[in-house]
Formats: sequence, structure tokens, C-alpha cells
Amino acid sequence: MKAIVNISLKAGVLDSQGKAVHHALDALKFEGVNDVRVGKQIVLNLAQTEKEKALAEVTEMCESLLANTVIEDYEIELIS
Amino acid sequence: MKAIVNISLKAGVLDSQGKAVHHALDALKFEGVNDVRVGKQIVLNLAQTEKEKALAEVTEMCESLLANTVIEDYEIELIS
Repeated sequence: MKAIVNISLKAGVLDSQGKAVHHALDALKFEGVNDVRVGKQIVLNLAQTEKEKALAEVTEMCESLLANTVIEDYEIELIS
Repeated sequence: MKAIVNISLKAGVLDSQGKAVHHALDALKFEGVNDVRVGKQIVLNLAQTEKEKALAEVTEMCESLLANTVIEDYEIELIS
């Protein structure tokens, strides 16, 4: 089973990487960009085949390692 | 319109960040993880409302700035 974890900074947390990308897009004359946020996407290939167990495992991985839950949100998508 | 750009290393390109995460998960006794790949997710808030034009714009952004197309693949998802 494949798990896709999207990790993004919480709303209100300064996203300096996003600001830098926004600035670079402006410099390259791309207009009409209101906001840019940069996050991480982690793709895990799991041996687990049961969806519920996989979700529980990946949630624990996010809480303990993958995401900094003080400043980041995470979303888990499972593809069997 | 919101554009979500997922950027990942091409298959075959060494993903050292993914290897490090995999190693850390092993150290934390998470079993049954076969592979980990780490990519970027860039969320753009665009003024453009037409889907076709937005896709063309974001594709150009990816080619010229957001992705290194030599070693990275990108996927664009548009949400109106």
C-alpha cells in the first residue's frame, strides 16, 4: 500500500520559502500570483495491506517524526 | 484558482532525504516500510480563473523555476 503524506505549514506561520518563490516568480514577470506556500510530500511504500492499520501507522509516523505538529499540518492519502 | 504542484525526484535519482527518513523510521521501530521518497508540494493562489490559461502559466512556472526537470518530475492539479 502506498501512503502519500502532504505536510504544510499551518496558516499564520511565516513561510519564508514560499515568500522566496513568490518573489522569484515576480522577478520572472509571472503576474497574477497572489500567494505561494511550500510544503513537503512524503511518499511511503508500506508492506501493510489493511487500510485502517496503515492509516494508524502513518498517523503515528507523522506525529512522532514526519511532521512538526506545532507549526505543521499533515494530510494522509492511502492508495492500495 | 488554486494550483497544487507536486514535485518529486525522478525514479532512479538518489533521494538522500528519503533514505534519511527511512532510516529514522527504522530507528523508531516502524516496521514494514519498503521505500520512502520525499518531494515538494507548492500551492499557488492564482488570480487567473480560466483553467486552460492557468495550466499553461503554471507549466511555464514549473519549467522555468519550480522544478529542475533534469532530475525532477512535476504534476499540476488545479482547483477552482
